[in-house]
Amino acid sequence: MNRVLVLTGGGDCPGLNAVLRAIVKRASRERNWEVVGSYQAFDGVMREPTEIKILDENAVAGIHVQGGTILGTTNRGGPFAWPVKKQDGSLEHLDRSDELIRKLEHLGIDAVINIGGDGSQRISQKLYEKGVNIIGVPKTIDNDLSFTDFTFGFQTAVQTATEAVDKLVTTAASHNRILILEVMGRYAGWIALHAAVAGGAEVCLIPEIPYDVNKVLERLRKRFSGGKGFANIVIAEGAHPRGGEMVYQNEGKEKKSGKARLGGVALQLKEDLKEAGCEGEIRETVLGHLQRGGTPIAYDRILATQFGVKAFEMVLERKFGEMVAYKHPDVISVPIKLVVQKYNLVDKQSYLIRTARGIGISFGDE
Amino acid sequence: MNRVLVLTGGGDCPGLNAVLRAIVKRASRERNWEVVGSYQAFDGVMREPTEIKILDENAVAGIHVQGGTILGTTNRGGPFAWPVKKQDGSLEHLDRSDELIRKLEHLGIDAVINIGGDGSQRISQKLYEKGVNIIGVPKTIDNDLSFTDFTFGFQTAVQTATEAVDKLVTTAASHNRILILEVMGRYAGWIALHAAVAGGAEVCLIPEIPYDVNKVLERLRKRFSGGKGFANIVIAEGAHPRGGEMVYQNEGKEKKSGKARLGGVALQLKEDLKEAGCEGEIRETVLGHLQRGGTPIAYDRILATQFGVKAFEMVLERKFGEMVAYKHPDVISVPIKLVVQKYNLVDKQSYLIRTARGIGISFGDE
Amino acid sequence: MNRVLVLTGGGDCPGLNAVLRAIVKRASRERNWEVVGSYQAFDGVMREPTEIKILDENAVAGIHVQGGTILGTTNRGGPFAWPVKKQDGSLEHLDRSDELIRKLEHLGIDAVINIGGDGSQRISQKLYEKGVNIIGVPKTIDNDLSFTDFTFGFQTAVQTATEAVDKLVTTAASHNRILILEVMGRYAGWIALHAAVAGGAEVCLIPEIPYDVNKVLERLRKRFSGGKGFANIVIAEGAHPRGGEMVYQNEGKEKKSGKARLGGVALQLKEDLKEAGCEGEIRETVLGHLQRGGTPIAYDRILATQFGVKAFEMVLERKFGEMVAYKHPDVISVPIKLVVQKYNLVDKQSYLIRTARGIGISFGDE
Amino acid sequence: MNRVLVLTGGGDCPGLNAVLRAIVKRASRERNWEVVGSYQAFDGVMREPTEIKILDENAVAGIHVQGGTILGTTNRGGPFAWPVKKQDGSLEHLDRSDELIRKLEHLGIDAVINIGGDGSQRISQKLYEKGVNIIGVPKTIDNDLSFTDFTFGFQTAVQTATEAVDKLVTTAASHNRILILEVMGRYAGWIALHAAVAGGAEVCLIPEIPYDVNKVLERLRKRFSGGKGFANIVIAEGAHPRGGEMVYQNEGKEKKSGKARLGGVALQLKEDLKEAGCEGEIRETVLGHLQRGGTPIAYDRILATQFGVKAFEMVLERKFGEMVAYKHPDVISVPIKLVVQKYNLVDKQSYLIRTARGIGISFGDE
Repeated sequence: MNRVLVLTGGGDCPGLNAVLRAIVKRASRERNWEVVGSYQAFDGVMREPTEIKILDENAVAGIHVQGGTILGTTNRGGPFAWPVKKQDGSLEHLDRSDELIRKLEHLGIDAVINIGGDGSQRISQKLYEKGVNIIGVPKTIDNDLSFTDFTFGFQTAVQTATEAVDKLVTTAASHNRILILEVMGRYAGWIALHAAVAGGAEVCLIPEIPYDVNKVLERLRKRFSGGKGFANIVIAEGAHPRGGEMVYQNEGKEKKSGKARLGGVALQLKEDLKEAGCEGEIRETVLGHLQRGGTPIAYDRILATQFGVKAFEMVLERKFGEMVAYKHPDVISVPIKLVVQKYNLVDKQSYLIRTARGIGISFGDE
Repeated sequence: MNRVLVLTGGGDCPGLNAVLRAIVKRASRERNWEVVGSYQAFDGVMREPTEIKILDENAVAGIHVQGGTILGTTNRGGPFAWPVKKQDGSLEHLDRSDELIRKLEHLGIDAVINIGGDGSQRISQKLYEKGVNIIGVPKTIDNDLSFTDFTFGFQTAVQTATEAVDKLVTTAASHNRILILEVMGRYAGWIALHAAVAGGAEVCLIPEIPYDVNKVLERLRKRFSGGKGFANIVIAEGAHPRGGEMVYQNEGKEKKSGKARLGGVALQLKEDLKEAGCEGEIRETVLGHLQRGGTPIAYDRILATQFGVKAFEMVLERKFGEMVAYKHPDVISVPIKLVVQKYNLVDKQSYLIRTARGIGISFGDE
Repeated sequence: MNRVLVLTGGGDCPGLNAVLRAIVKRASRERNWEVVGSYQAFDGVMREPTEIKILDENAVAGIHVQGGTILGTTNRGGPFAWPVKKQDGSLEHLDRSDELIRKLEHLGIDAVINIGGDGSQRISQKLYEKGVNIIGVPKTIDNDLSFTDFTFGFQTAVQTATEAVDKLVTTAASHNRILILEVMGRYAGWIALHAAVAGGAEVCLIPEIPYDVNKVLERLRKRFSGGKGFANIVIAEGAHPRGGEMVYQNEGKEKKSGKARLGGVALQLKEDLKEAGCEGEIRETVLGHLQRGGTPIAYDRILATQFGVKAFEMVLERKFGEMVAYKHPDVISVPIKLVVQKYNLVDKQSYLIRTARGIGISFGDE
Repeated sequence: MNRVLVLTGGGDCPGLNAVLRAIVKRASRERNWEVVGSYQAFDGVMREPTEIKILDENAVAGIHVQGGTILGTTNRGGPFAWPVKKQDGSLEHLDRSDELIRKLEHLGIDAVINIGGDGSQRISQKLYEKGVNIIGVPKTIDNDLSFTDFTFGFQTAVQTATEAVDKLVTTAASHNRILILEVMGRYAGWIALHAAVAGGAEVCLIPEIPYDVNKVLERLRKRFSGGKGFANIVIAEGAHPRGGEMVYQNEGKEKKSGKARLGGVALQLKEDLKEAGCEGEIRETVLGHLQRGGTPIAYDRILATQFGVKAFEMVLERKFGEMVAYKHPDVISVPIKLVVQKYNLVDKQSYLIRTARGIGISFGDE
C-alpha cells in the first residue's frame, strides 16, 4: 500500500475541502493507494503523538460544499522555521526539516501533496530539494500566484466582495454618502479590481497603482457634478498613497509602527479625503474574514476538484517538485521553483484595467 | 383629487421601497387619490424649489426587491430642530414646523405617511398635535419599536448577520481562532440574539445584559476543555461590560469622549479578553452598513407590503395620529404617542433568551 | 440514565436538524438524560437489528445549517399501518403498534419526541392514548398545521419560491411572456400567497379559493392594456378551477385518474388559458423538491431551535400528549388531539389576502 | 454625431444589461458618439413607428445587477426570415433585410452591435456581407459558442444549477431517493457537466456522450452497494440514450413528434431506469427558466462588462464583421464567419471530463 500525505497551510480559502475530497476520490480508484491527512499543516506530523488520519471516501463525503479545511491550517512557521518559545518567553525559529523527513519515512509516506500559498510552496521546494516526493497545489485567496489563470477561492471572495458592494450601493444612494469598502489584497489588487468592476464602484485603489488622494477627490467631484449624490470606493488592504507607506490591515498582529488597526487603510483614506477637502459624508466597511469563509461558489469547487484530481495524478506520474496550474481549459503542472520566483500582480496594461477605466473607474492615478 | 405625501426618514432599511410600492398600488385602486413623495424626509418639502414627485405605478414598478429607498432619507434634524449653520460656522437648530405645515397646505397635501423610526415618529406625534393628518409606519432595523411583533428590515439584517456567522465559523474552525462579530443594536440586542441562535455562537453580548469578561472567558474555556479549538462571539454595538460605559460604534460620528472608532466594541472586548488571560488567537469583524443594504428577504417584503397597504387604508379611515403595527396574523393601528414612550428591548425572561441559554450560549452574566 | 428517543417523519423540511441539535444540546445540560435517534422515523426501532443511535453533542455539531435530517425520514406508513408485501406482491397495512411499544420499553425509552406533520402527529396521539410518553414537534413545509403561528421550514420555502419569482420576472419581462410558477401546497396555499406578495406576481391561485380561468385572463388583459407585456402567476399544486377537481402534483406517485404528471397543475392552467383565448406566450416552471432542500434561513433555524429546546423541556415537565407551538413571542404547548382536528388554511378575510388584493393580485375569483 | 445601434436577440441571459451599460459608459468617454437601443432585437427598427431609444448613462445606471435585458429580446425570426401571417393563418418567412438596411441608414446608424447567440451572429454575418458595419457580442447561456473561453451568463446558470443540486442532495439523502435534475443544454452539456462536478452528482448525462441506461444503473448500484442510499443525476435537456433520439425540452413549443413535454428528458430517464430494474424511488426536477433569470454573479458581470467595452472599441477601430471573444486574460476579436461554423461542444478528452470521471461521475458510457 502506497501512502500519500496531504496537508493544508496558510490562511483558509473556500475550496480547500473540495481539493481534499477530489484527491481522496481519485485515489480510491487506484489499488494500493491510501490518503492520510496531517492536521494543521505539518504540525500533525511533527506532534508527539502525530495527528494524522486516514482519509477515506466517508471522511470526505459532502465536504466540497463547506468552507474552511477539515484538516485545519496554520500560518505560523513551518519545518524550516519552527517557532519555539525560549526560556525568556521570546520566540526562536529552528530548522526541523530533517526531523520532519525522518517522520515522513517512519510513517511510510511515499508522496506529499502540499496545498498552500507562496510560503507553503517555498517549503515544498526546499523539501523537494532535500529529496521529498512533493507536489504543490496553489492556494491563495488573493490570486497572487503566478503560472495559473486563477486559484480556487478567489472567485468566491470576489462574489462576497461584490455582494458587499451591491449592499453598500443601495444604502449609499439612500443617504447620499461615500462608502469605502476595504477588501483583501496585500500585494495584489485582484479582489478589489474584480469587485469594483462587478459592483460598479467609481474608485478602485490597489497596491499596484499608488494613488493620489487629489485624483480620487477629482473623480468624486466629477460624479457629484454629474448629479449623483453618492459614490463607492473599493480599496485593497495593500493600497497606499503615491510616495506613501503601505499600511495594510495586518489580521490582528501588531505592526512595528503600531499603526495597524481594524480597517486602517479605509480609515486613512477617509481622513486623507477629509483633509483634501471632501465635503461628503464618508462611511467605511471592512470585509475582513468574511472573504475567506462560506460555501465556495461552483466555479471554485470545479477548479479545486480539478486541482485535486490533477495533484493525485501527478503523484502517480511522479512529477515531484511541480505544482498544479490552470491554463484554460487545461490543468497542467509547472516546476515549483518557477512559481515562487514572482507574484501574479495586476498588469496595468491588462484588458481588465482598460475595461475598468473604460467604464469610468478611477485608480487615483490620472 | 386628494393627495397623500409619503416620506422616509432615519437610517435606511431593507423593505422601505416595498412599503412605498404598496402605498402607491393600493392608492391606485381608489379614484381621487394620488401619492406624492418627498425627497430626503421632510427636506423635499422644505427646499426651494420643493423636491417632491408624483409616485404612480410606473415609478414604483419592481422596486420592492431593491434595498434602500427611492425617496432618499436623512437622519439630520427634522422640522422641529432644523439644522442651520450660523455665521461662525456652528450649528443651531430651529423650529420650522409652522413653515412646514404651511407648505403642506400650499401643496394641497391631505395626509402624510411618515415611514421612520422612533425619532421620526416623535416628529409625527408633534405634527399630529399641531393638526397634521399623519400616519406612522414603523421602521427600525434594530427591531426596537414597541407595539409591533416585528418591523420590516430586521429579518433581512438577521439573515445577513447569520450568514456572516456561518462564514466565520468555517474560518474559525480551520484556524482554531476566536472570532468576534460586531452587529447593529445600540439599545436593543435583537440582531445579535437572533444571529447567535441561528448561527450557533457560543457567546452573545447585548446591551440589555451587561457582561462580565471573566464569565465570557469561562464559557470559552469550557468549550476548549470540551475539545473544540474555536469559538464564535456575537456582540451588539451597544453591549458593554457590567458597570462599564456603552461605547457603541457611532456610524462615523465622533463621540464626545473621542473613543468611538470602527469596531470599537469588538476591539474593546478583544483587549479585555486578552487582559483577562485569554490565550487563543482572536479576530474581529464589523458588519456595519452591510446589515442595512441589499435585497430584502421575502419575510420583510411581505411585512413591508402589508404595512404600506394598511397605512393607506388608515388614511382612508382617517386614523390619524396612529401607527401601523403587526400583531400576527393581523396588521393593526396603535396611537403614536404610546409607541414613542418605550423601546422594545430584549426581555431576559423571554423564551428566546431561555432557548439561547438552553443550547449553551453565554450572555456573559452567569 | 433516562432516555429520550427522537425521530423525524414525513417529507423533509429545512430546520429538522436544528431541532435535533437543540434537543441534544438542551438535554446535555441535564444529568441523567441521553438522547437516542431512530432512523427513518419508527423504522429504526422496528428493524432487526434496530437502527438507533446515541446522539451526543459531537453528533449534532454544526448540523443546524444543513437541510434534510441526519436521521433520515420516510412517509410510508407508520406503526398503525405498517406496509407489508403480501405473497401476491400487493401491499397490506398491519397494526404493529404493540410491537413498537414493547420495543421502546425494551430499549429503555422513557419518552419520545416525534417531529412530523399531521400524519405523524395522529400517530403520536394514538401512541399517547396507548400510554407512550410522547411529545410532538410540528413539521410542515406548507404551514398547514393549526395552533402555531408558523412552522419551521416554511419561511425557507417561501424564500426559495420568492427567489424563483424574482428570477422569472426578469426573463418574463425580457421576452414579454406569461410565466407560471407551480409551488408546494396541496391543501393550503400559504407558500403561493407569500411568494406572490413578496415577488410581486399578478395572479395567485390557491386551493382555498377555486379560480375561474376567465377571471385570471381578465386580470392579465388588464395588465397588458396598462402597457406591460409580461405577467407572473404563482399557483399552488392544490389549486383548482371552480367546480373542478384537484389535480395536484403527486410527487411522482401515479394518481388513480392517471393524470398526475410533472407540473400537472401549471400545465392545466396553461392549457385552460390558451383555450380561454389567452394570446401571450406562456411558460411554466415547477419548483418541486427545491423547496424542501437547502440551508434553512435564520428565521427557521431560530424557530426550530426554540422548538427543540421546548420539546425537551416538555419531556422534563412530563407534558406528554402535547405538541410544541409558537405564539409570538412565546413557545407554548397544546394537546395533540386538538391540533390534528383541523388544518391551518388561508383565511380569505385575513389581512394578508386583503394586502394581496390591495396591491392588485388576482385570486381568479373576482 | 455618430450613432451606434445596440440590440439583444435570442433567449435572455444574465449579463446582457452589464454589456449594454458598458457600451454606453465607454461611448460616453468619446465625443461625437451616441448609443441607441432597438427593442426586441431588430423589431424595434422594423416597427412603424420605430421603437428605438437613446441610451445615456442615466438609462443604464445600476442595470448591471439586473437579469434579463432592458431592451427586451425575441427569438422569432430576424430580418432574413421575418415571420408574416398569411391570410390562411399560416406563417411564411420573408427576407426584409434590404428594408432593414434602408431603415438603419434613415436612422443615421453608423454601426451596429448585435448581442446574441449563433442564430443572431449568422444574421450579423449576412448583414455584414451586405455592407452593414456590424460587431458581434457572443451570448449563449449554454456556453456553446466557439472561439471564446466562456460567454457571460454561463457561470450564473452553473451557479443556479449547482445550488439546485446542493438543495436536492439534502432531500435525497433524507429520503434515500434518486433525484434527477434536468438542466439546459440542447447541443452542449456544459451546464450539466459543471453542475455535476460542483454539486457532487454520481451521474451526468450530456448530448455529447449518448448514454446506456444499464451503465447508469450499474453506477447507481455500485453506490448503493457502498452503503449510500441516495444518488443524484444531472441530465442536460439534449442528452439521449445511445442510439436514441434527442427529445429535448422544447421551451413549450410543440415538437413535430408531439412528445415534447415539461421535463421530457428527465421523465424518459426515470421510466427507462424503472424499466431496467431500478428499485429506488426516483424524483425529477426541471430547472427550466430559473437558469436564465436573476442577478448575474460577479464573474459574468465582469466578463459582460469587458465584452461591452471591447465591442465599442471595435466600433472605433472599425473591426466590422468581427465578434468579441475572451481568451484569458485578453479580450480579442475574431471574424464572425469563423464563429458560426462550429459549436463549442464538450470535448471528451478534456481535463474536466477526466476530472469528473476521476471523482467517480458516470456519463453512462462505460
